[in-house]
Amino acid sequence: MKVSIIGVTGYSGLELVRLLQRHPEVSIQSIHSQSLQDKEIATIYPHLKKILDLPLEPIDIEKIMKISDLVFFATPSGISKEIALPFVEANFPVIDLSGDFRLNKAGEYEQWYGKAGAPQAFIQSAEYGLSEFRDRPKATFIANPGCYATATLLSLAPLVQQDIIQADSIIVDAKSGVSGAGKGLSQMTHFTEMNENMLLYKMNSHQHIPEIMQQLQAWNSSIPAIQFSTSLIPVTRGIFVTIYVKPKKPVTEATLIALYQEIYQEQYFVRIQEQGTYPSLKQVVGSNFCDIGLAYNEKTNTITIVTVIDNLVKGAAGQAVQNLNIMGGFPQELGLDTTPMYP
Amino acid sequence: MKVSIIGVTGYSGLELVRLLQRHPEVSIQSIHSQSLQDKEIATIYPHLKKILDLPLEPIDIEKIMKISDLVFFATPSGISKEIALPFVEANFPVIDLSGDFRLNKAGEYEQWYGKAGAPQAFIQSAEYGLSEFRDRPKATFIANPGCYATATLLSLAPLVQQDIIQADSIIVDAKSGVSGAGKGLSQMTHFTEMNENMLLYKMNSHQHIPEIMQQLQAWNSSIPAIQFSTSLIPVTRGIFVTIYVKPKKPVTEATLIALYQEIYQEQYFVRIQEQGTYPSLKQVVGSNFCDIGLAYNEKTNTITIVTVIDNLVKGAAGQAVQNLNIMGGFPQELGLDTTPMYP
Amino acid sequence: MKVSIIGVTGYSGLELVRLLQRHPEVSIQSIHSQSLQDKEIATIYPHLKKILDLPLEPIDIEKIMKISDLVFFATPSGISKEIALPFVEANFPVIDLSGDFRLNKAGEYEQWYGKAGAPQAFIQSAEYGLSEFRDRPKATFIANPGCYATATLLSLAPLVQQDIIQADSIIVDAKSGVSGAGKGLSQMTHFTEMNENMLLYKMNSHQHIPEIMQQLQAWNSSIPAIQFSTSLIPVTRGIFVTIYVKPKKPVTEATLIALYQEIYQEQYFVRIQEQGTYPSLKQVVGSNFCDIGLAYNEKTNTITIVTVIDNLVKGAAGQAVQNLNIMGGFPQELGLDTTPMYP
Amino acid sequence: MKVSIIGVTGYSGLELVRLLQRHPEVSIQSIHSQSLQDKEIATIYPHLKKILDLPLEPIDIEKIMKISDLVFFATPSGISKEIALPFVEANFPVIDLSGDFRLNKAGEYEQWYGKAGAPQAFIQSAEYGLSEFRDRPKATFIANPGCYATATLLSLAPLVQQDIIQADSIIVDAKSGVSGAGKGLSQMTHFTEMNENMLLYKMNSHQHIPEIMQQLQAWNSSIPAIQFSTSLIPVTRGIFVTIYVKPKKPVTEATLIALYQEIYQEQYFVRIQEQGTYPSLKQVVGSNFCDIGLAYNEKTNTITIVTVIDNLVKGAAGQAVQNLNIMGGFPQELGLDTTPMYP
Repeated sequence: MKVSIIGVTGYSGLELVRLLQRHPEVSIQSIHSQSLQDKEIATIYPHLKKILDLPLEPIDIEKIMKISDLVFFATPSGISKEIALPFVEANFPVIDLSGDFRLNKAGEYEQWYGKAGAPQAFIQSAEYGLSEFRDRPKATFIANPGCYATATLLSLAPLVQQDIIQADSIIVDAKSGVSGAGKGLSQMTHFTEMNENMLLYKMNSHQHIPEIMQQLQAWNSSIPAIQFSTSLIPVTRGIFVTIYVKPKKPVTEATLIALYQEIYQEQYFVRIQEQGTYPSLKQVVGSNFCDIGLAYNEKTNTITIVTVIDNLVKGAAGQAVQNLNIMGGFPQELGLDTTPMYP
Repeated sequence: MKVSIIGVTGYSGLELVRLLQRHPEVSIQSIHSQSLQDKEIATIYPHLKKILDLPLEPIDIEKIMKISDLVFFATPSGISKEIALPFVEANFPVIDLSGDFRLNKAGEYEQWYGKAGAPQAFIQSAEYGLSEFRDRPKATFIANPGCYATATLLSLAPLVQQDIIQADSIIVDAKSGVSGAGKGLSQMTHFTEMNENMLLYKMNSHQHIPEIMQQLQAWNSSIPAIQFSTSLIPVTRGIFVTIYVKPKKPVTEATLIALYQEIYQEQYFVRIQEQGTYPSLKQVVGSNFCDIGLAYNEKTNTITIVTVIDNLVKGAAGQAVQNLNIMGGFPQELGLDTTPMYP
Repeated sequence: MKVSIIGVTGYSGLELVRLLQRHPEVSIQSIHSQSLQDKEIATIYPHLKKILDLPLEPIDIEKIMKISDLVFFATPSGISKEIALPFVEANFPVIDLSGDFRLNKAGEYEQWYGKAGAPQAFIQSAEYGLSEFRDRPKATFIANPGCYATATLLSLAPLVQQDIIQADSIIVDAKSGVSGAGKGLSQMTHFTEMNENMLLYKMNSHQHIPEIMQQLQAWNSSIPAIQFSTSLIPVTRGIFVTIYVKPKKPVTEATLIALYQEIYQEQYFVRIQEQGTYPSLKQVVGSNFCDIGLAYNEKTNTITIVTVIDNLVKGAAGQAVQNLNIMGGFPQELGLDTTPMYP
Repeated sequence: MKVSIIGVTGYSGLELVRLLQRHPEVSIQSIHSQSLQDKEIATIYPHLKKILDLPLEPIDIEKIMKISDLVFFATPSGISKEIALPFVEANFPVIDLSGDFRLNKAGEYEQWYGKAGAPQAFIQSAEYGLSEFRDRPKATFIANPGCYATATLLSLAPLVQQDIIQADSIIVDAKSGVSGAGKGLSQMTHFTEMNENMLLYKMNSHQHIPEIMQQLQAWNSSIPAIQFSTSLIPVTRGIFVTIYVKPKKPVTEATLIALYQEIYQEQYFVRIQEQGTYPSLKQVVGSNFCDIGLAYNEKTNTITIVTVIDNLVKGAAGQAVQNLNIMGGFPQELGLDTTPMYP
């Protein structure tokens, strides 16, 4: 399968290069950037020397459709909604890593992203690409989920789908590594400010909230809202989510874990921890794994879910490749079965 | 005031040295260690060269009572309960930074710390030293609060004292820098393991839970339990606490902030953030401040409290000095009014 | 002594606030910024809440001369050379933390800083403020040394002054924490780029080279040049310098250490390590100390000097306060005798 | 090719697992540990769940020779010299990542490692496995080089082999990430001590010095000694080496770079930087690349070489796999052509 990448110079785009470079069924045909052009990518990103020998090109839709079989958008929000439409109209396969086609409800994108959304018809044609719970495996226009959304939804799916928890009890305390904030410079992500620091941002207003709600309600329409916080921790990669929910009736850790193991038994990338153990962030970094640990506190009737992913892999480029595998009829783990980089 | 420090070679003990060295009314007379003796402390801790010119001595109760006016215990749990009693019996002032005298209820110490507790009579004579809410300012036997407990109690005091929140709704997601785990070596706190990592430990079993419950129930007996989680983040110093509670009836952020400002208006070390801003960890590191931010989410009827302290200062040695100031009739901030070390 | 600070919102300016706030003989009268004005500084830097209750003001030379006894420039290079002259002409005391008045030789500033220098007459009137080796203690116009220069010069002074080493053998491998690169945003100092990274910058072209050469040659005119490299390491504060020099004739570690101890015996802030021990960066962070360790390798006839300072304290604001103390006739350590923040 | 790994639970052993798991011509047959046994490795290292489904076994030489074609020793120094001999005597292929068979000269191992060395006959039969400069590609007993030695030798090879530099002018200032110090706990590598720190250790006594000297002298017998320092920086992975040498006669950067490009033109894993650019540590982490930058300072007649590798890959497990590829007649990069993990 021949692919092109638009927005290759961002962290998700670079991670696509890293993952696809070792995918046995994919070759990268062209790479595109709005800001940097006519240079070999390795002159800007020296880690890619001898790895990817391609120049950065301006975006050329016709050329991409001619030389490739699929295009990735690894662009910031607001780009693909402007330039992905010709691909979609031509039924040319698109996997969009940005948030532009994730929100189905008219007006929601504008409300949370602060700009006009894509035409509603196109949004409807996009498949929300949470790989483990895809509705239409053959869909060729994929809205790849957000990083926080991926970790949160995989954590909650069994409980919400099985209607085990009190609908208004979901509290998500999510922490992200700084690469989640992207390559753009800001005071907050200046080394001297973020090092030895932690902070909560976008209080009650993170744009992944509606995306999570949309999927939770698709699974269980009784969920009214979620309490969802996002903090930055001083690591480069990784999302660490701690979720607190109250079951409708008391449960045991053993049955909870059995439930998760059953629901995810066919899913290579979801690993359920043994009882009494909880994942550390580092055990997934560099890989497409999503590791989940579960506890139950009788005194407070609270289930605690601890989930970790690499935000750039399972939370972005890795899941995008997983969706390519699904689309292409390959095994989900093809090219993605790498060992986490520990230590 | 002349003081001695027992357990000076741990992080809390060293922090006592750092803070007391600039206290205008205190001089350190002697320093004691169980493990290291007969050496100048600066040969082991070179940062103290020209700062503290004293040898490490074995613990000598009689000598301490003779040369000093007050003794600090900066020992791990399980030490002061064995050796502090002669001081207490002699009415010699003691500030204990360990957990040995914090839990009033018989059997609780054994349950949470896994070893026999101090004699119950002695425990009763100790005053729980949450400086901003001291019952007996003249008490001379102080059980200095734990770091997590300090941040959590200062965050919740106004809401719990005023009976504003649903009693069973308290969820505390607490994160600590690695110095909170002390100087003892462990796989978990090996640099290579903890760097670029985050992990949750002591799930539903941290020994600060009963200490927090004891104080919350003293303020409001209706609180049945709290959900309380502790994670390590890869920074040296600091505690970052995110708390979720549900008010009995809807509130506004403005009235919440006004309430906190009123309750803490006389308290130098508690700084309430302006509406819409939340503290970052670094803005208190190195200082005795406790900074608190407040938000309210109408959709979920949830108050979020974000609180930061330096675990070694306000969470240990700083609060101990603050308690010394209270005991000595000094202004609370004497010797403690240092600027946080930013960046 | 009443002081004003111009350029207070940079890291050196903020560090001046931190240090002066506890200086018993200094009060900060006014703070000035070119970019941010008319706001309380604590609304921009929340760590200063309750610490410094002053608004940011535009630069007003007349007002400063009226209300203060001394002005600090903590501005980037290129500012003080434009606006400090009225102060100097009026014999109003100035301590300039920037590089604008450090280079005596005409044309050197332009060559290394890439912009026109200050008028030569003014440069001549400035005293290079390496506190331990000040020529004119009463000088009231101080060019405060650069951070790398301070660590390098204090490391080399005894050997160069005593003419012990081969003149062309000096190799300085200097590493700096990222705060040395200032508050300005850049790709290089973006958290995600600098974290878990190390890099060498300004190869053979760092602007502290001529400043170091000027002082070395003042001590010993035979020094022809130095090999000097600067790298960034992923810490916030600190400079770690490793220097390699060849003695003219074989030496012993014991005599080297004795020489350094003798030369620095009256200097509170220089601490010579015992034989066989070398300073770690952390043992000085937060303090004005400069710690120096020495080794000699017979096989290569090479002396290795390992020196650490906090770049914002001894390398900037701390030394500036030390120079204020010298100017004011106070003990050098007044207000500066703080314990390093360990751990 | 079927392989067994002895010492799999150390960082080099785990890295062998990570690299071999994706090698198309290798399968791991058995894993061995002296300290941990009879457990699935994934219960101890949860990052390996679903990656490696093998139990930890005691060391069983006969079994290994029966089920495998090659054995890796990823043990600390002092182990393989005791237990590798039966393999060597049986001509069973061995790649030893420890230092036990690197030093040819009788007595040197004892001098630098502080314990008795292996029998001299066995040492002679081992091939020093600096992959780019292997003497006997068919050798089946490989002493894999040390991490510092690899970076230093690849940096110096062209200059030393071509006799371009003054023989007594080599100064190596090497910095390592903390994983280089291994998994063993120590005060120095405790997170709270090493974080935000840098320190120099083993002054003039690092055990890689004789290994480097041996190879340099094999290339050019005129080299008398090297000045070699090792420091730890607060990152998990990576070695950053800055080398200073004086050429016999003045050179230009262009000719230096041309020389390096020529000597390494067939070597996939050595990447020479373009003139005026120097590698940052991160651009090789996770990969087997060794990136080298070169500068020349006319004023001091000094060449500066800046070289980076991942200490666990090119400095240990990666080079071991590269040596397996050489031994097996595979392309050097087989299974090793991964993209560095950036950011």
